[in-house]
Amino acid sequence: MKQWVMAKHPKGLVKPKDFRLEEVPIPIPGEGEVLVKTLYLGVAPVMLRYMTNETSFERPMGIGDVMIGRGVGMVMESHSPAFKKGDLLQTKLGWREYAIIKDDPYYMTYKMQSKDLNPSFGVGALGMNGFTAVIGMRDICKVKAGDTVLVSGAAGSVGSMAGYVAKALGCRKLVGIAGGKEKCQLLLDKLGYDIALDYKQPGLYEQLDVHFPNGIDVFFDNVGGELLDEVLGRITRRARIAICGRISEYLIPPEEYHRPKNMYRIGLKDAKMEGFFVYDYQEHYPEYELQLATWIREGKLIPLEDIGYGLEAMPEALISLYKGTNGGTRMVKVAD
Amino acid sequence: MKQWVMAKHPKGLVKPKDFRLEEVPIPIPGEGEVLVKTLYLGVAPVMLRYMTNETSFERPMGIGDVMIGRGVGMVMESHSPAFKKGDLLQTKLGWREYAIIKDDPYYMTYKMQSKDLNPSFGVGALGMNGFTAVIGMRDICKVKAGDTVLVSGAAGSVGSMAGYVAKALGCRKLVGIAGGKEKCQLLLDKLGYDIALDYKQPGLYEQLDVHFPNGIDVFFDNVGGELLDEVLGRITRRARIAICGRISEYLIPPEEYHRPKNMYRIGLKDAKMEGFFVYDYQEHYPEYELQLATWIREGKLIPLEDIGYGLEAMPEALISLYKGTNGGTRMVKVAD
Repeated sequence: MKQWVMAKHPKGLVKPKDFRLEEVPIPIPGEGEVLVKTLYLGVAPVMLRYMTNETSFERPMGIGDVMIGRGVGMVMESHSPAFKKGDLLQTKLGWREYAIIKDDPYYMTYKMQSKDLNPSFGVGALGMNGFTAVIGMRDICKVKAGDTVLVSGAAGSVGSMAGYVAKALGCRKLVGIAGGKEKCQLLLDKLGYDIALDYKQPGLYEQLDVHFPNGIDVFFDNVGGELLDEVLGRITRRARIAICGRISEYLIPPEEYHRPKNMYRIGLKDAKMEGFFVYDYQEHYPEYELQLATWIREGKLIPLEDIGYGLEAMPEALISLYKGTNGGTRMVKVAD
Repeated sequence: MKQWVMAKHPKGLVKPKDFRLEEVPIPIPGEGEVLVKTLYLGVAPVMLRYMTNETSFERPMGIGDVMIGRGVGMVMESHSPAFKKGDLLQTKLGWREYAIIKDDPYYMTYKMQSKDLNPSFGVGALGMNGFTAVIGMRDICKVKAGDTVLVSGAAGSVGSMAGYVAKALGCRKLVGIAGGKEKCQLLLDKLGYDIALDYKQPGLYEQLDVHFPNGIDVFFDNVGGELLDEVLGRITRRARIAICGRISEYLIPPEEYHRPKNMYRIGLKDAKMEGFFVYDYQEHYPEYELQLATWIREGKLIPLEDIGYGLEAMPEALISLYKGTNGGTRMVKVAD
């Protein structure tokens, strides 16, 4: 079987030379172990930080280690009472065609229930991205009929689903912010947004005034920084803001972060701002999947997927993520 | 009967000359109206803003109008199906010995249940201040065993009760911030705080480092501004901050507000910051009263009251509030 290992710790953005493809024997599961065949692998911006050992929640990576990554796989052989042959798992497979996993919290394994739906959804809509959208939009922002909703990073995997969740919950107006004409068109054509705002064009904040004449009830934020500050300047009473990401601040030191003028409005407007991380909500995953699968079957959520083919495509799938070229959930199909 | 009317719109802080005491006949309730005898009247910083017509939620006051204010009174005569003789009400009595009220949302009337306890508690522990402490500490901050908790404005009516609520919920360490030696002593001697920090002494933020070596789990804030920013710099993962007041910002224009350097840490730490206003939670008042009355009967909450006597004492009670001389719930006993 094939697997990708880390050839170098990346300097700056990640490059093709940071990876090396290897051929190794398919591993044989021992006592307590499970052999899983990789079907789909996801990519996420955080993977760069796995490779530079900058996250607190992932184990350190050395040169020659198999690339860390989650995906969806099928259990081929189980020597663990926790899993049985045929189970469809979301877990830390790594970038390889077959993986050995254990019933251990490290893997944060989630057993999928919705076997009638495409397993690829486990990487996006029925996986961490979809769960993130439900936590932020439904449970933190408590979107209800009549709300005006803004999403930043709206064409991304999480942002695309956050929009669908807001619509499914009956929001009155759904505005998405994305970069470039193509992504904005995607918001309108394929992701159910009412209005798409291009942050690469001038006048973004004036556009917020135009489209939210009575203020913003809900903000699902992937950007942070000045945009978040400007949104705080436009919130309604009892507005709710879910902080999902802060991409504007990931590549600059804290001293250079924007210092907001409008934080006081959280108190003034009796509003809420809350950061969250999907892994803190593991006990709720089955309920999230049930809700999202129901919306998919009802046609209220149409997952937008951006699929590469073959394990060989992994480095490029990750690299392209930082270029931000496509919309929806970027993933690689490794096997049927 | 006697009543206080507004003689002038205050300029700057409120002064004795802004009020005038009048004698008028006891009013006679008409159809749908209720005659209430005033027992206790509370004072609150917001009253200055009633007199300058700066709040959005209170009706405008003109010269000669009876001073607006809440208190606890007993129904003497009722021509409304909503109330009966002997009911103990928290309502907008105004500064007068007898008041006519109606079953109208404007009055935000709350019928007290805990008749075995002193009616004065209706101004503080079993009224809006106690309810505010429960909403902020229990429902927003979700204080649990082991939490480290900080309260600013800790000797005030709300802050004093917020401390008791945190202790009743099992917090591990309770630190209060107040102004001056006397108030700090009060925190330790009468309000159950473990540590009292005097913001009038230098080195407040260093003291936070000393007393929260592993960070602050919960902050109940009445101050805002720079203090809030410094607390954000010291929060733990999944910390919770309830914004009850922003007294540092009430007397300066927004352009002069402190611009925080640490707001991004709400996202970084998956923390929550939420502003709230007790009147948004009216449907829960009976449950709040039940909880607080239970804590009082169990000796877990010992309301600290600062009582003036006779309706004549009202202006001074309000004026002294801005000087911040005492601790606990400031009120005036008008009748037995």
